[in-house]
Amino acid sequence: MRHLLIFLIVVFPLAAMAITADSLKYVDASTLPVIGKGFEDTQNRYERLPATLQDVTRPPVWNLSKNCSGLAIRFRTNSTAIGAKWEVTGDVVMNHFTMTGIKGLDLYCLENGKWQFVNSARPTGKTSQVVIIQNMPEGEKEYMLYLPLYDGLAQLEIGVLPSAEIKAPEVNSPQTGKPVVFYGTSITQGGCASRAGMAYPNILSRMLDREIINLGFSGNGKLDYEVAEAMATIDASCFVIDCLPNVTADLMKEKYDRFLEIIREKKPETPIIMVENILYPHMYFDQNVHQAVVDKNIALKQIFDAQEKKGDRNVYYVKADDLIGHSQEATVDGVHLTDFGFVQMADQLYPVLKKHVK
Amino acid sequence: MRHLLIFLIVVFPLAAMAITADSLKYVDASTLPVIGKGFEDTQNRYERLPATLQDVTRPPVWNLSKNCSGLAIRFRTNSTAIGAKWEVTGDVVMNHFTMTGIKGLDLYCLENGKWQFVNSARPTGKTSQVVIIQNMPEGEKEYMLYLPLYDGLAQLEIGVLPSAEIKAPEVNSPQTGKPVVFYGTSITQGGCASRAGMAYPNILSRMLDREIINLGFSGNGKLDYEVAEAMATIDASCFVIDCLPNVTADLMKEKYDRFLEIIREKKPETPIIMVENILYPHMYFDQNVHQAVVDKNIALKQIFDAQEKKGDRNVYYVKADDLIGHSQEATVDGVHLTDFGFVQMADQLYPVLKKHVK
Repeated sequence: MRHLLIFLIVVFPLAAMAITADSLKYVDASTLPVIGKGFEDTQNRYERLPATLQDVTRPPVWNLSKNCSGLAIRFRTNSTAIGAKWEVTGDVVMNHFTMTGIKGLDLYCLENGKWQFVNSARPTGKTSQVVIIQNMPEGEKEYMLYLPLYDGLAQLEIGVLPSAEIKAPEVNSPQTGKPVVFYGTSITQGGCASRAGMAYPNILSRMLDREIINLGFSGNGKLDYEVAEAMATIDASCFVIDCLPNVTADLMKEKYDRFLEIIREKKPETPIIMVENILYPHMYFDQNVHQAVVDKNIALKQIFDAQEKKGDRNVYYVKADDLIGHSQEATVDGVHLTDFGFVQMADQLYPVLKKHVK
Repeated sequence: MRHLLIFLIVVFPLAAMAITADSLKYVDASTLPVIGKGFEDTQNRYERLPATLQDVTRPPVWNLSKNCSGLAIRFRTNSTAIGAKWEVTGDVVMNHFTMTGIKGLDLYCLENGKWQFVNSARPTGKTSQVVIIQNMPEGEKEYMLYLPLYDGLAQLEIGVLPSAEIKAPEVNSPQTGKPVVFYGTSITQGGCASRAGMAYPNILSRMLDREIINLGFSGNGKLDYEVAEAMATIDASCFVIDCLPNVTADLMKEKYDRFLEIIREKKPETPIIMVENILYPHMYFDQNVHQAVVDKNIALKQIFDAQEKKGDRNVYYVKADDLIGHSQEATVDGVHLTDFGFVQMADQLYPVLKKHVK
């Protein structure tokens, strides 16, 4: 038996033997840079709103700010295998969203200056430990590991071969210039991408080579003023406001102006991109949904026109017409975008954002 | 209170009041035509292999044949709301696949001769009861309800307004000509579409306006001869063999020729389309996976060339090069296609199949 083992080890190249997650050495991700954070003063590392908002903002917004959408770990390693060990806070399950998207991780590698998908880490429960990729060629490379879109992280460790090195990145990608800030809804937060890298703000981050900050709050992109105040403290290249699915035309008339004004008080000239409500595929059948979307998009145009009339030369308007294509196949449930929808939305927003990300 | 109720009913139009699933009348789907079945003699209605194969084929193939991938109910109704009540047999859960895709339903409507997505029915457990769409304009229309991709159906009822009619379709769409038969793997079965309509055989069914028969068996597209024998009994417009992800180059060399021969014994001239292994995005990092895919695609070309050499003029070859695009973003896990991947694969296969579907 022992001879057989030695025979196997000698005769078969090492690459042919599957690596197990247990055999990796793990490094706490807190020793590596995290990107996508709008605020340094969060309660815990992998969160999206400043601690000072805890008793100020509505509880659902606060709770959702603990979901990690838009955050990613950057690192460099010469390991030919990479894994992860992570514990989520909520162990969230939804029926129209993969668990890989909700609470998995998603690894990309910088290849010829472009971020290329390597593989996702599929969660197995509240705590997961998996090999993401193995049998890679020798050599040091730069990586980005996206964090869960719809769950919080209690702990995250990155696994590499025991003989390998893992360290902070050397390359600035995404670029360290001013980030793009997205404010919005479940769709903005990434519902329902199959994996974190396919949420449209993350796709745009790769297309623009620019850090993004995701302030999408599922069901709660309701123009909360304290969120606008927090956003206004960020030195952003531009702000994208994509919250219409969570508001009514009446709520927009009540709050949108003041929401803009709060941003303008601190950031008088930063471009603000106002996005219409996407044209939900099921609105071509449900007449009530159709009317609600039409009303909101009319209201947004009025708010935009009024803002321009006030002399604001740095607001931009994105019509919904082409945002998710015309196949009516871009969603899982008439509302939430799949990867197919997110790719189309990113393609449409890219030329608009490109101008403001210098 | 009673006056208030009467006031509300009179003043607010009916369409503004949300319909509940309980308020619908339910019709057993067994009274309506099912499409996508290759065999009439199944044990239960919503299954994919003939009952005679129960003790002949391998148990995993048999069990997977009870998943409803490719099946759909066709009907016509004047109801302005449509719902469903259904019970699945397995209540399957996976971490890289939405439950809506695994065990939900997916409703399409025939609009100007094209199938348009209406909405999906998101499962809530082993038994679910949901309103799929409401507030539709008055008028009779044709519908197609796709069944679960990765679970079996114990029971299915379709819900309409109590005053509405539901009946068999009047329009032949998809056309009743010879169906396209797909043989393959988890990907062929629809993993990991966000909803049933987005599995690539179902997309192609709509593009071609032709019934398809899905013989994809997750992890088990292993060239089983008894499945080839069953396939050979189907009067197909063409056979698509897309099983490479489930076999090794060695297994292909052992079984692929005989698999073709079994089909050719009964169907000497029906076009057979042999599809290469898709180029998994993670194979650009995992060298072993890369080699395995390259080996299988070389083996397939040799098998194809040999088949042509034997005088078979009705075999066609689909290279993997462009099948899932070149963004490397088409999968959830390096292997299984998302809606984004399936749309690209359907677009690539469409011109090849179009020639054989007359």
